[in-house]
Amino acid sequence: MIVKNNGDMPEAPVKEEKVKNVLMKILIGPDDGSHNIIMRHFKVLSEGHSPFHSHPHEHVVKIEKGKGIVVRETGEEVLVSQGQSLLIEENETHQFKNPFSEPFEFICTILNPEK
Amino acid sequence: MIVKNNGDMPEAPVKEEKVKNVLMKILIGPDDGSHNIIMRHFKVLSEGHSPFHSHPHEHVVKIEKGKGIVVRETGEEVLVSQGQSLLIEENETHQFKNPFSEPFEFICTILNPEK
Repeated sequence: MIVKNNGDMPEAPVKEEKVKNVLMKILIGPDDGSHNIIMRHFKVLSEGHSPFHSHPHEHVVKIEKGKGIVVRETGEEVLVSQGQSLLIEENETHQFKNPFSEPFEFICTILNPEK
Repeated sequence: MIVKNNGDMPEAPVKEEKVKNVLMKILIGPDDGSHNIIMRHFKVLSEGHSPFHSHPHEHVVKIEKGKGIVVRETGEEVLVSQGQSLLIEENETHQFKNPFSEPFEFICTILNPEK
C-alpha cells in the first residue's frame, strides 16, 4: 500500500501542443505501482484550456474546485462545477476550458495507456 | 459525454458480509457508459468498516472528507485523512475502518471487473 499527501506532489505545466495554462500532478500512477488506473489532478488556470481532441481511452472525471466549460464533440459548451462527475467516452472529441477568473480543478482518471 | 450531480445520486448501504456502516454511491460506472473505470464514493460512518479482504483488482483512492484507518496486510494500522491518496495493490489484503465520530469519505476507483 502506498499513501501520499496530495499537497506534497509537484504540479507541473502541461507542455503539449494546444494546451494553455494547465497544471497537472499525478496523484497515483505507475511510479506508485498502479498497473491499471492513473489518477491525475488538473488545474486549469484562468483563460486556460486543453486541446479539442479525442483518444482511445475514456476519462472518468470528478470536479474538485471552481467551474469550467467542457466542449462536446458537437461544439456545444457545457458548464460544469464542483460537485459534478463526468464521463468522456472513448474517441469522443472534447475540450476543457476555463473562461473564469478562479482556477478550475478536477480529477481525471484514465487507464494506463501502456497496458 | 455524461455529466452527473454527485448530490443527486442515491447512496445505499453496502450489504456485503463483514461490512458495517458503509454507504456507497457510484459516481461514474457501467450504467453511464464507462467501459473500464468505475468511480465509487464511499462513506464509512462512525464504527463502520469494510472487510479485511483481498481481490485481484487494485484500488486507486482519494480521501475526500474526515479521517480513517487503513489496515495493511501485516495488520499495521495507518491513519489517513483528507488530502491524501492511496494505492491498494492487486491481491493486497486491506481494510478501511472508522473508529472516529465523523464520517470518513473517499473515492475509490477500480477497473470494471466485467472487462
